[in-house]
Amino acid sequence: MKKVTILDIAKELNITFSTVARALNDHPAISKSTKEAVKKTAEKLGYSKNKIASSLRSGKSNIIGVLVPSLDVSFFSSVVHGIESIMNQHGYSILLYQSQESYKKEDKGIETLLNSRVDGIITSFAIDREDSTIFEEIISKNIPLTFFDRALYQLNAPSVTIDDYKGGYMATEHLIQSGYKKIVHITETRDLSIFKERLKGYLDALKAYNIPVNEDLILKGNLSLNFGKDCVKELTSRGIDFDAIFTLEDFTAMGVIQQLKSQQIRIPEEVGVIGFANEAFGSLVTPSLSTIDQQTHLMGQETAQLFLTMLKEGSFYKMAPQRIKLDPLLIVRESSKGPQL
Amino acid sequence: MKKVTILDIAKELNITFSTVARALNDHPAISKSTKEAVKKTAEKLGYSKNKIASSLRSGKSNIIGVLVPSLDVSFFSSVVHGIESIMNQHGYSILLYQSQESYKKEDKGIETLLNSRVDGIITSFAIDREDSTIFEEIISKNIPLTFFDRALYQLNAPSVTIDDYKGGYMATEHLIQSGYKKIVHITETRDLSIFKERLKGYLDALKAYNIPVNEDLILKGNLSLNFGKDCVKELTSRGIDFDAIFTLEDFTAMGVIQQLKSQQIRIPEEVGVIGFANEAFGSLVTPSLSTIDQQTHLMGQETAQLFLTMLKEGSFYKMAPQRIKLDPLLIVRESSKGPQL
Repeated sequence: MKKVTILDIAKELNITFSTVARALNDHPAISKSTKEAVKKTAEKLGYSKNKIASSLRSGKSNIIGVLVPSLDVSFFSSVVHGIESIMNQHGYSILLYQSQESYKKEDKGIETLLNSRVDGIITSFAIDREDSTIFEEIISKNIPLTFFDRALYQLNAPSVTIDDYKGGYMATEHLIQSGYKKIVHITETRDLSIFKERLKGYLDALKAYNIPVNEDLILKGNLSLNFGKDCVKELTSRGIDFDAIFTLEDFTAMGVIQQLKSQQIRIPEEVGVIGFANEAFGSLVTPSLSTIDQQTHLMGQETAQLFLTMLKEGSFYKMAPQRIKLDPLLIVRESSKGPQL
Repeated sequence: MKKVTILDIAKELNITFSTVARALNDHPAISKSTKEAVKKTAEKLGYSKNKIASSLRSGKSNIIGVLVPSLDVSFFSSVVHGIESIMNQHGYSILLYQSQESYKKEDKGIETLLNSRVDGIITSFAIDREDSTIFEEIISKNIPLTFFDRALYQLNAPSVTIDDYKGGYMATEHLIQSGYKKIVHITETRDLSIFKERLKGYLDALKAYNIPVNEDLILKGNLSLNFGKDCVKELTSRGIDFDAIFTLEDFTAMGVIQQLKSQQIRIPEEVGVIGFANEAFGSLVTPSLSTIDQQTHLMGQETAQLFLTMLKEGSFYKMAPQRIKLDPLLIVRESSKGPQL
C-alpha cells in the first residue's frame, strides 16, 4: 500500500500543501475549521505523522563521526564504505566530515561532530597536522577514538593501518624483478610516517638486490597529479638516467604517466611505473596503472570492529590499545610489465 | 610557540598519558597528590584545556546536513565542495551522509542529521525514492530544505538544477555536427526526471536535424560501468548499425569505451562516444571522454546561497520557492572527434 502523504490530503481538500502542513502542526494562522477538515481527512486516508523518530531518549545517539581528508580520494571513500557496512549492521549511523587535509578544518570537524552528539570518532587525520592536542582531548574526555591508515602511535587509541614499509618494498621489488634497474622514488616533503615507511621499503628493497641508492633518483614534494608531471620534467631536463618510477600514491603516478606520454616516452618499455593506493581510475587509464592495494574495505571493517569492541568494553583507554596492521597487495597492470616487452 | 599537550605534562612528571588525562578530569582513581602535581605542572607549562569549544548555547548549531547518494561520484563531491566553500565563509560546518542511492538509508540519514541538531538539510535524493513523505515532513516541521540536481518540484522547497534537456540536446547535436548519424542513447529504467529530460533533448536534437528516431538505438537499464559494456555487447551481437553512443552519465560511457576497445572497435573513428557529468576520470582515460559538464562547483555555491537566503528570511515555506537552473557546458575531448579522423 502506498503511504499517504500531505500532498494526498491537500489534493483531497483542494487546498495547498503548506496549509495542510501548518494545520497538522496546529499553526495559529490556520482556521479551526480547516484544521478539523485536515484532521478528518488525514484520519480517513490513514495518514501517519512522525516518520522521523526522535531517538533523544538515551544518552547514546548511535551516531559515529568519521573524519577523513577527502571523500573523492577513492582510498578514503572505500574505507568509509567498509566502516559503514559493519556499523549499519550494528544499528549505527555514520556522519562524515572532510578536513581537506587541513588540521584547522579538522579541529572544526571534531568540534562539529562532538556538538552533534556522536558516540565516538573514527579518523584518518590531515596531512598538515603537527600536534596531537585535539586527539588528546578526545581521549581525556573518554570519548572513543579509533585511527585508520594514519595513526598517532604516541596516543593510546587503537588503530588499523597497512604495513607501508612492506608496500614500499613490494612495489620496488616488483620493478626490480620485472627488469628495471634505475628506479626513481617520488615521496612527500611533509612529515607523515606512512610515506617515510614506503621510502624505507624502497631503500631496503634496493639494498636486498644490491642496487646502489642514487640520491638523484629520490624526489620530494607535495603529492598531486601536477607534482608527478613536474618530476618527469625535472628528471628528463636534468638528463638523469632512469627506467622506472615508484610514486608514493596514485595521483602522482597519473601525472607521471601523462607527462611520459606527452614526451613520447613509452610505458612500460622505456619507463615502468607503479603507484600506491589502488585508486579507482588506475584500471581505467592507458596504460593501466600497477599499484599497491591497501585492502580498503577490510581496513574499514576492521576499524569498525575495533571501534565496536572499544564501545562494548566501556572504559576506553585503560589497556594498551589494539593495533592492527594489514598486509598490502601487489596489483600488476600494464604500466610495469618490464622493459623487455 | 608550540602548544603544550597532555603528553608534555606526562613527560615532565614521568607518568603516563592516561594518568594525566584522568587527573585533569578529576577522576576518582587518581590520588590527590598526583592531581596537584599535574595541576601545578600544567600551570607551569602553560597548558590550556578545552580546545573543543561547546557551542551548545544558542538554539542554532550552525551545522548544515548534506545528504547525497555517494561521495565517490565526483559530481556529488564537487558540488559538496562548492557548498562547503560558501558555508564555511558564513561560519557553518557541513556534516555529510551518503544514501548509497537507497531511500531507506536516506530516511535513516535524515533522522540522523535531525537528531544531530542540524539547522537544515541540503540534498540530492536517492534514485529509488518513490514518495516524498519524508521531505514533506521536513517542510511541515519548518526545517530549511534545499534540493540540488534532483528536485521534487511538487514540494515548495527551493532547488538548483541544471538544464538536463539542454544537456541532452547539446550532446546529441555535437555528435551530429561531428558527422555521426546513427546515434545510440543509453538511458535509465528508473524514473528520474533528469534522465527523462536528457532523453527528450536527444530526441529533439535528432528531430531538429531530420534524423529519424530508431527505437533499436535507445537502450534502457541501470546506470553502471557494466551496463555500458552490456549495451555494446547487445548492439554488436544483434548486428545493429550504429556509429555513436551518448550515455546518460560517464560511468556507463566508460563501460562503453572499455567494451568497444576490447572488441577492437576504434574510437572515435568507427564509433563516437559522449557521456554526461564530467567525472574526474574522463580526462585521464584513453581516448579521453567527451562529456557534458554540470558546473558542479557553481551548483554547490548557488545551492548554498539559496539556502542562506532561506535561513535569513526565517519563514521558509511561505512564498513560492526559488528555482535556479544552470546551463550545462559541452566538453569536447578525443572520444567524439568525428568519423573522418
